[in-house]
Amino acid sequence: MGVRLAIVGATGVVGQAMLQTLESRDFPVANLKLLASARSVGERMTFRGASYTVEEATPENLGDCDLALFSAGNPVSEALVPHAVARGCVVIDNSSAFRLKSDVPLVVPEVNAHVLSHHRGIIANPNCSTAQLVVVLHALRTLAPIERVVVSTYQSVSGAGKEAMEELLAQSAAVLAGESPVPQHVRHPIAFNLIPAIDHFLDNGYTKEEMKLTLETRKILDEPAFRLTATAVRVPVLVGHSEAVTVEFAHPVSVESARQTLACADGIVVEDDPVRHIYPRPYEKAGHDPVYVGRIRGDVSHPCGLNFWVVADNLRKGAALNAVQIAEALLTRQLLRVQTSSLT
Amino acid sequence: MGVRLAIVGATGVVGQAMLQTLESRDFPVANLKLLASARSVGERMTFRGASYTVEEATPENLGDCDLALFSAGNPVSEALVPHAVARGCVVIDNSSAFRLKSDVPLVVPEVNAHVLSHHRGIIANPNCSTAQLVVVLHALRTLAPIERVVVSTYQSVSGAGKEAMEELLAQSAAVLAGESPVPQHVRHPIAFNLIPAIDHFLDNGYTKEEMKLTLETRKILDEPAFRLTATAVRVPVLVGHSEAVTVEFAHPVSVESARQTLACADGIVVEDDPVRHIYPRPYEKAGHDPVYVGRIRGDVSHPCGLNFWVVADNLRKGAALNAVQIAEALLTRQLLRVQTSSLT
Repeated sequence: MGVRLAIVGATGVVGQAMLQTLESRDFPVANLKLLASARSVGERMTFRGASYTVEEATPENLGDCDLALFSAGNPVSEALVPHAVARGCVVIDNSSAFRLKSDVPLVVPEVNAHVLSHHRGIIANPNCSTAQLVVVLHALRTLAPIERVVVSTYQSVSGAGKEAMEELLAQSAAVLAGESPVPQHVRHPIAFNLIPAIDHFLDNGYTKEEMKLTLETRKILDEPAFRLTATAVRVPVLVGHSEAVTVEFAHPVSVESARQTLACADGIVVEDDPVRHIYPRPYEKAGHDPVYVGRIRGDVSHPCGLNFWVVADNLRKGAALNAVQIAEALLTRQLLRVQTSSLT
Repeated sequence: MGVRLAIVGATGVVGQAMLQTLESRDFPVANLKLLASARSVGERMTFRGASYTVEEATPENLGDCDLALFSAGNPVSEALVPHAVARGCVVIDNSSAFRLKSDVPLVVPEVNAHVLSHHRGIIANPNCSTAQLVVVLHALRTLAPIERVVVSTYQSVSGAGKEAMEELLAQSAAVLAGESPVPQHVRHPIAFNLIPAIDHFLDNGYTKEEMKLTLETRKILDEPAFRLTATAVRVPVLVGHSEAVTVEFAHPVSVESARQTLACADGIVVEDDPVRHIYPRPYEKAGHDPVYVGRIRGDVSHPCGLNFWVVADNLRKGAALNAVQIAEALLTRQLLRVQTSSLT
């Protein structure tokens, strides 16, 4: 028993993490197609010990699939997702192309798996920074209504893909050799630097990345007027997004109750013991699934405020893991076609 | 005409920046003593083309000085500043030892140079992150009273001294060579990583660095109930501190009026043109004096909110420059003894 699965963008950093996650979580795969752009065709990738050849992502190659996980950017999703759906394939899409469409569920399973039943073929995977944040906000809103959130992000270069990771490494080597860092894929030098701009700018002065945090959080939490302001900053970290978060509640919430609630919440690990210098850091959390929370403390500037620090692997919970969790939730809810002949 | 000057901690990153700043700003020096710990004694440093030998920082060596700039950490300041003052020397101290004492002015000249007249021998230089922030907050509060500030910092390793800078470079080289980064001076690995903890933890869950931002801002702005919450994070940047800031005003403040006010304010340079991808970044601002502000925008979560991004060289405005500016303000106000025989 299993699903005829396609991964579109299989050779990218998220595609590779999807493959690892499907394997480690033992997702039932009846048939696997690894699709990518023309320049990756012919590459070999391994899944459960078997070797697969990467094929071109075309409408034809998306036939005979039950499920496709897309992570190849907006233009590819816009071009191919409708073809996949027309062929009866369910798509979990990691691009931002469909996330805010009213007939597309935007899902973080710990928060709103129930909306999957409304899907019409496309389910959207949220922005990486949003995914790790809403898991925490959803747990905390059980303690008191959330009035407002201020979040500053510290986002790793893997959020911009493989080339950006290679560029950070190459630029770092250049600076260590006394040379100037030369930007190529990323607009400005990123080695030993910060870039306070991710994605393009909108008319209101925010970047699209920042407004994704506001708008996607509203949709996932199903609170259309949710008040959230974000500053999104690229930092010279390879993998792992971090967030400094300030939450204003409608009533006072104690640090102890927040810590307990978060410790019991699905998908969250609390690492918060200042006396022993324990708080999550992205370098150490790369390759791990949970959303880590630390530095939980009251707010000296607000009687109903709480501050904390959130770290997650942006390729896992921010992308691949969340997509596979959505696929698992579809299976559990019998919202996905399943083949009776298994791959092995 | 000039001042008999001592620099205590002359061989540190801030001490070196003080020397450069005194030279570039043509500060009148009648006699110069470069003092440091025993292990730096005998090192040679250059000022205005002349070579000086570093001597040990002792009470005796602080005799016959009109002014001493201290930047050697709290224990040295606690031990030696009283001796210097007892010998009639005015001290501008960069440690946190005296900053919150009621009889010690804590000064950022653009904001509160007028309190210098109350000094009794010691003037405190604020925390690096505080200095760059209050310059901006002071300018903005002319537009409307500030109700609350939320700030997340992105602080370079030079704030932790020369050893931390060397450690970031060494760890970066190790990671590039496929090895593990080994922490020595800094508690956790910092290469390609973030450490959400600077200075030690206090009982309220904040770090001392974070509460410095709250308490020093209150004192410098002379607003004892000023509401500010901070998260202070060490980032793998060599020089230059950055801050994501959210300000809530008592009344709405337009982006345009904020931009104009900041552009006209002493010590501030606005670099804010998203369409042309212009916003300040720390790598490019190291070695520069101004406080740079960009990413100025309204707040989608608050009708009277404003968000922006502040970058400054923490060794300049955050330390050496501010100390020299204080010295200049003392001279202007005739609050400092001046020798009639000049150095050259």
